[in-house]
Amino acid sequence: MAKSKKKLKVIPLGGLGEIGKNITVFEYGQDIIVVDCGMAFPDDEMLGIDLVLPDTTYLAKNIERVKGIIVTHGHEDHIGGLPYLLKEVNVPVYGTRLSLGLLEYKLEEHGILSSCKLETVVQGQTLELGSFKVEFIRSTHSIADSIALAIHTPVGTVVHTSDFKVDYTPISGEPIDLLRFAELGKKGVLLLMCDSTNVERPGYTMSEKTVGETFEEIFMNAKSRILVATFASNIHRIQQVVNSAVKYGRKVVICGRSMINVSKKAMDLGYLNVPEGVLVDIERIKNFNQDELVIITTGSQGEPMSALARIAVGEHRQVEIIPGDLVIISATPIPGNEKSVYGVVNELFKKGAEVIYESLADIHVSGHACQEELKLMQRLIKPKYFMPVHGEYRHLKKHSNLAQNLGMNKDNIIIMEIGQILEINSESAAVTGTVPSGKVLVDGLGIGDVGNVVLRDRKHLSEDGLIIVVVTIQKESGNVITGPDIISRGFVYVRESEPFMDEVKQVCKEAVLKCEGRNWPSKKGAIKDTLREYIYQKTKRKPMILPILIEI
Amino acid sequence: MAKSKKKLKVIPLGGLGEIGKNITVFEYGQDIIVVDCGMAFPDDEMLGIDLVLPDTTYLAKNIERVKGIIVTHGHEDHIGGLPYLLKEVNVPVYGTRLSLGLLEYKLEEHGILSSCKLETVVQGQTLELGSFKVEFIRSTHSIADSIALAIHTPVGTVVHTSDFKVDYTPISGEPIDLLRFAELGKKGVLLLMCDSTNVERPGYTMSEKTVGETFEEIFMNAKSRILVATFASNIHRIQQVVNSAVKYGRKVVICGRSMINVSKKAMDLGYLNVPEGVLVDIERIKNFNQDELVIITTGSQGEPMSALARIAVGEHRQVEIIPGDLVIISATPIPGNEKSVYGVVNELFKKGAEVIYESLADIHVSGHACQEELKLMQRLIKPKYFMPVHGEYRHLKKHSNLAQNLGMNKDNIIIMEIGQILEINSESAAVTGTVPSGKVLVDGLGIGDVGNVVLRDRKHLSEDGLIIVVVTIQKESGNVITGPDIISRGFVYVRESEPFMDEVKQVCKEAVLKCEGRNWPSKKGAIKDTLREYIYQKTKRKPMILPILIEI
Repeated sequence: MAKSKKKLKVIPLGGLGEIGKNITVFEYGQDIIVVDCGMAFPDDEMLGIDLVLPDTTYLAKNIERVKGIIVTHGHEDHIGGLPYLLKEVNVPVYGTRLSLGLLEYKLEEHGILSSCKLETVVQGQTLELGSFKVEFIRSTHSIADSIALAIHTPVGTVVHTSDFKVDYTPISGEPIDLLRFAELGKKGVLLLMCDSTNVERPGYTMSEKTVGETFEEIFMNAKSRILVATFASNIHRIQQVVNSAVKYGRKVVICGRSMINVSKKAMDLGYLNVPEGVLVDIERIKNFNQDELVIITTGSQGEPMSALARIAVGEHRQVEIIPGDLVIISATPIPGNEKSVYGVVNELFKKGAEVIYESLADIHVSGHACQEELKLMQRLIKPKYFMPVHGEYRHLKKHSNLAQNLGMNKDNIIIMEIGQILEINSESAAVTGTVPSGKVLVDGLGIGDVGNVVLRDRKHLSEDGLIIVVVTIQKESGNVITGPDIISRGFVYVRESEPFMDEVKQVCKEAVLKCEGRNWPSKKGAIKDTLREYIYQKTKRKPMILPILIEI
Repeated sequence: MAKSKKKLKVIPLGGLGEIGKNITVFEYGQDIIVVDCGMAFPDDEMLGIDLVLPDTTYLAKNIERVKGIIVTHGHEDHIGGLPYLLKEVNVPVYGTRLSLGLLEYKLEEHGILSSCKLETVVQGQTLELGSFKVEFIRSTHSIADSIALAIHTPVGTVVHTSDFKVDYTPISGEPIDLLRFAELGKKGVLLLMCDSTNVERPGYTMSEKTVGETFEEIFMNAKSRILVATFASNIHRIQQVVNSAVKYGRKVVICGRSMINVSKKAMDLGYLNVPEGVLVDIERIKNFNQDELVIITTGSQGEPMSALARIAVGEHRQVEIIPGDLVIISATPIPGNEKSVYGVVNELFKKGAEVIYESLADIHVSGHACQEELKLMQRLIKPKYFMPVHGEYRHLKKHSNLAQNLGMNKDNIIIMEIGQILEINSESAAVTGTVPSGKVLVDGLGIGDVGNVVLRDRKHLSEDGLIIVVVTIQKESGNVITGPDIISRGFVYVRESEPFMDEVKQVCKEAVLKCEGRNWPSKKGAIKDTLREYIYQKTKRKPMILPILIEI
């Protein structure tokens, strides 16, 4: 019975209080398993940053205890961090075929595929990892082959839904396995960890099938060429475009690097079915009439380098907009992407295309459960404890309220922050400490070498630019030999502002003379202060000022 | 009859193909009048820019012909550019009392109020300006005292709706004067210029009154303190908060600089009515119970320096969140502001406040007409020609489609770009040329001194930072005396990357030696190229590289 006194530790390292970089650590005794390891996109403040990773130093420190990593589906915010984690913590990765198929690409790109151990599992299977029995439950989401988890531990069962929606009519495969959730609920679940993304939306998320019905209508009436932009990972969406294309005798052209890679992988694995002769290479579109073609492309978020964005501004090598083209943007702008998406829409309209986008028709459905589906999950699982996951604080809070409205005791709901340790068993659940956690910023090849100091400087430079003051000084006498010379970048357009820059130079000269004999730091300080003051008073701007003094 | 052969020129200088900085020029013979002169907010690419103005050089060049400027209402995107325009083109400004009242603040801030000629007009009045008879038609919008215009010219009447909604039950004053629009339509309107902001939204925009009903309910049930964040200029919204406060015995506290200024002005002018003793100074809130207070504050867009944002992060001097506080954010995030608004919401939740925001209740209505209202306007005015205004290209296009669906001839609809000249009379309407137009960027006190070069540098600096290489060289021999010394900002956190920065220095040394004897530009070029290549290959980053060579 000593065993049952031992507690399970649940440590979210990402995905709580934020959107993206989902990763959760489960720990019992000496055994550790990890669920997902995603990436996040940088905020506007993270200037020049390419992507954001979870801090996984805790796993690196305990590497010999980590039995394995489980991926629930193939989205970036669930697998995007793995190439970086596996370089440090190379343990087996378990996931369904498509999830691992998509992961393989990333590992290839990072040149570590051969050294990684990827183990395919199937929906319904149960896997034994140390003290954990991990059950892969059939689920539905905006990507095929996604799973939810029942993690059976000596102190009880944890159900982790990961991203899900309750789709009764998925495009391929079986619907979400509600019976199994009910069964688990019947037996008793210690802890439910549930997706909070859409907790603010009332009602149900529509089935992916409804989008297909809209496509049907559009294809039936379209006389011109059709372009459809969507997420490359949304195989089901792509399948439905293909289906409509086949039905109405159009050839399908795949456009955009990730769209080509993912659809190829999905076809190889049998998740995307395209009849013989329907696919046409993009180089050959000239050989067909407009009304014989549909182009499936990346760029549904208006990403500047994406195929659709380049098509819109007329910079795509093979595809250019022909007046009358019908463009369907089958996605919702992720908060922050609105401007770029609408920028693309405007350009497409200007080129004479007809554009159908989210605000105008049912051409997109979410992949996440709305309130009624979340209630269903609560009712089926009837957990003793509940931890809302995958959402900003407002989502977690609303999800907690939703559970309370279903009668759950407030004390049994735990809203956690990343890095916190939840210790839990059948008697109690409490946050008992923390482990290192946070954001690791990736800029080019640099991982974590861009910190707050660097970001602060970048922000400063981006807002008011830079002024460099160069002076050379005679070592013994301290007399000025050359300068002060002034170089500015990102401050004012110099040719137009020459008189002003001359004043600046003059002010600088005086400052230098004033501080003769002083020691170096104070010399630099004096120049900096005088200039900053003068420039602010004249321009209300605060450029970065870099005095460079050289002793000869 | 020669006269009727003369044509009217309509020249939009802002507000078409963009959101904001609305301004239109009307020209007949020698006479010019201007409608509105707004500002716009900078795009994400306009790093460090405070605000954006329309290019008004055309007006400055023709100053002696400008008879006057008409403002349709007091929003930033209609009056925000005036302080800058009036410094160059000081002509009389005509508007209703509240519009001019709000304008006065800006002119005061710019220290030019005394030199400006502001002429108050009333709804229904007609004004003669050269060959133009300008009629001020009672309208409804999200700010009080707004007007539409009927501009009577020798070649016909132009109706300019400016921003409007059809509100049958406005909070103060009469509803929009539909009868007058009908009358004008009956007589015959040459050109309709109509607000396109909400053309993508089906149905009707709800009346401002409906928001009041939601407030009623909330106030009736609230046991705690209430904070309401909204736009300072939305006097009607503020009035409704005050009404609910009075009804349920709460004192009203005004919080935030612009909220204090605007509400004071609105009270002075009689647009905002607050009974004796209801207003409480913010310094005195400690003297009241929580359920006796409602705080009306700025910050509904999550602006970092706004009162609500500072309250949320606990940095406001007088107001701090008390668990149980009810915060109502009575506004919709403007595209681009979502992240900052939700950031504030998350902070408020964390501090224990209950937060009601747009996605959750009817606490906000738009100030712009939806599709059914736009159709109504088309049917009432029955214009010969139609120019959709106030919107990005996609809005103008959709608005054109809407008019065509009502039977209007495509050839009579003109989608224009700013700077284009429309020449129009009863026989024809055509774009005949252009005038200078575009964006003038304001950064601190600098107007237009930040151009593309500067922005490009700021973007470059913001993404990968800066590396400065300093070398001093003996004039005659060309020998290196000091350096190369390397200074970096916003590139990598140097202490962590010292070994790498040493390599960089070494590479630099070699580059300098290699290019001995060469002329200066080529020396600099060589250093730049070598470094850029080396750094990119090592880091996949492209910092700005500034070689500084000094000859002694």
